[in-house]
Amino acid sequence: MKRNMHTIDGRRLWQSIEEMARIGALPHGGSRRLALSEEDREARELFASWCRDAGCEMHVDQFGNQFGVRRGSAHDEPLVMFGSHLDTQPNGGRFDGIYGVLAGLEVMRTLHAAGLQTKRSLAVVNWTNEEGVRFSPGLTGSKGFAGLLSPQDVAALRSSDGAAFRDELQRLGYLGSPTPFKVANYFEAHIEQGPVLEAAQLAVGVVTGVQGVRWFEVQVTGADRHAGTTPMSMRADSFMASCRIAMSLRAAALAISADIRLTVGRVAVQPGSINTVPGQTHFTIDLRHPDSAVLDRVEGLIFELSASEAKAEGCEIAVKKVFDLPPVAFEEGTVNRVAEAVRKNDLPTMCIVSGAMHDACALATVAPAAMIFTACRLGISHSEDEFAEPDDLAAGCQVLLDAVVAAANLA
Amino acid sequence: MKRNMHTIDGRRLWQSIEEMARIGALPHGGSRRLALSEEDREARELFASWCRDAGCEMHVDQFGNQFGVRRGSAHDEPLVMFGSHLDTQPNGGRFDGIYGVLAGLEVMRTLHAAGLQTKRSLAVVNWTNEEGVRFSPGLTGSKGFAGLLSPQDVAALRSSDGAAFRDELQRLGYLGSPTPFKVANYFEAHIEQGPVLEAAQLAVGVVTGVQGVRWFEVQVTGADRHAGTTPMSMRADSFMASCRIAMSLRAAALAISADIRLTVGRVAVQPGSINTVPGQTHFTIDLRHPDSAVLDRVEGLIFELSASEAKAEGCEIAVKKVFDLPPVAFEEGTVNRVAEAVRKNDLPTMCIVSGAMHDACALATVAPAAMIFTACRLGISHSEDEFAEPDDLAAGCQVLLDAVVAAANLA
Repeated sequence: MKRNMHTIDGRRLWQSIEEMARIGALPHGGSRRLALSEEDREARELFASWCRDAGCEMHVDQFGNQFGVRRGSAHDEPLVMFGSHLDTQPNGGRFDGIYGVLAGLEVMRTLHAAGLQTKRSLAVVNWTNEEGVRFSPGLTGSKGFAGLLSPQDVAALRSSDGAAFRDELQRLGYLGSPTPFKVANYFEAHIEQGPVLEAAQLAVGVVTGVQGVRWFEVQVTGADRHAGTTPMSMRADSFMASCRIAMSLRAAALAISADIRLTVGRVAVQPGSINTVPGQTHFTIDLRHPDSAVLDRVEGLIFELSASEAKAEGCEIAVKKVFDLPPVAFEEGTVNRVAEAVRKNDLPTMCIVSGAMHDACALATVAPAAMIFTACRLGISHSEDEFAEPDDLAAGCQVLLDAVVAAANLA
Repeated sequence: MKRNMHTIDGRRLWQSIEEMARIGALPHGGSRRLALSEEDREARELFASWCRDAGCEMHVDQFGNQFGVRRGSAHDEPLVMFGSHLDTQPNGGRFDGIYGVLAGLEVMRTLHAAGLQTKRSLAVVNWTNEEGVRFSPGLTGSKGFAGLLSPQDVAALRSSDGAAFRDELQRLGYLGSPTPFKVANYFEAHIEQGPVLEAAQLAVGVVTGVQGVRWFEVQVTGADRHAGTTPMSMRADSFMASCRIAMSLRAAALAISADIRLTVGRVAVQPGSINTVPGQTHFTIDLRHPDSAVLDRVEGLIFELSASEAKAEGCEIAVKKVFDLPPVAFEEGTVNRVAEAVRKNDLPTMCIVSGAMHDACALATVAPAAMIFTACRLGISHSEDEFAEPDDLAAGCQVLLDAVVAAANLA
């Protein structure tokens, strides 16, 4: 990485990640910091104290989102915001979300140490409950901020242990009031949570959007029969039908687009006896692609091919779409800011579409947004085994700083 | 059915089946009479009283097997035995096992009413614990009688509720002592428990043997990965690998023999999350065929094809054989007795291999044995929905009588 005017401190960033990981530390290097838990409060307080040390003024909104604001010379203009989340999965890693918040903090620290003031104000943000573990679904803070969740939606949120979202905010001292922020641009740095950058031996990727996600539930009905007495030709085997469906769908979907992601993740075979032909098989399909038209075509296949393959095995079928999240395409100008920052640092890179949801998806509905991905080991995430190289994280942080500064100093 | 010299009474047989079904009756026409339960005692007592009314002398052996003996003129000669079992599955039907015992009773009643004495003595038998529900595994009485279970094996048998087999026999008053019976031939009438005869519109089938059974457990190991972030080409999807294995194996096995039975009945996919590529899939294979050489070839395929298909999906595999029961071929002369009895009654028929185990498998190790199958609705068994037509049961019973009489009057 070429040293430029404002060079972030990769070691300081890494040390902050390590220090944050001690809150809710798990035995194998991961962390458990569920949203609005005691561990979350501790993380928030550490983050706030670091922000204040870096010259930021702290704000908390009605969703508990924390903002560390560094005033710009044109502080009446919309500000440039960046960050991610500090909450984790139950057996989470130390990078997912945390990296984006602490890379944002490192931007603030670097500017603070250099005594540099941007034109637009800057805000580093920690969004509440991105993971959606204690309160389901996730993205609560960013969706609330973007106006995608109403006060009623938020009031209805209850944790798995019965606590109300608002009560928990209050208990932790993190129930604030609406912020006056207008967002000129939103940036989010995040580990890829996939294997693509690592396989391509790239430290950073320019994220152009987020795949659309559709979920389906498939119920295949055959007939429970004795495994010994029922000839193969007289069976209606729901599991064999499901195998045909899964394999045919995968082949047909890949023929439409090599970028398709099709996953059968949950499978239940009934009655589940070693010597009974299974009469009922239920499975799920997770389908993703950046292009709605492609998703539509594959969805059509899911209904048609499932029916024809089931019929070929003498089975009945019921397919239900249970979830549909459209793809997000990040704003071209903001994506280009990231690309320029990558180029400025002489980093080899690629464009990449996120396979996972991020707070940036909510922000993209109210402001031009973009993301920076950094490589992570084997694409592993939501696991204590999550790992990213310090140098790669530093590279992504430098790109964040350069993109943020460029956006903030633009007329 | 042509009326012949000794014609059984199909209505009396049906009424006895209905009366027996009232003991442990379930709401939808089935019965629950677990071995050595109170219901089993009640069934035994009803059976014994019916046998005595038909002129039989009752015996009970050390396994609780009940024998109703009708003396022949050459009562020092080995006798002709026939029967089945009165115990049921937890939600059992009224025919599985019961039919064979009560068809045997009907043979005795017919001969008794006609005042006919055979040369060899006859014995109708109710074997203890064929189903293996309360005491696992099953065929306890017939295996004990055939010397395939030692007194130690039987002493070690404990019910799921902790009771000792021997104590339960004693409690019920059914702990007898070794019988002096030598068996010239053993016959067993049974519902098919499969759909073949019904589909062929045949009342009865001549059973030539019982399929061998082998059980396998297959563990496919890939890698848990995020369904959104992991390109299809970078996955090791244990479920997709399992689908390939199941479908390839079925096709390859059917190419070896159309009579093969291959069933994947139990499937567990881990971690079982809708948006995670499953890293672990465990499934079972139930393999059956009447010919050991065919079973050997398909077993070879199970190991080879599973490995190559798993490898093609980037997965590891472990295959374990967990059960192996060789095929049984019934003695040709005894099978022919059944075939002659079918012919004598002008019944269209076919040869059939049993897909399920029966007490006759144990008896076949100590005496020439054969079985008669009767059609049952949709092949359904081990269910309250089990059903057989009264006329088909009567036809099978007549075949039993004619085969038994022919065997008993032979020099």
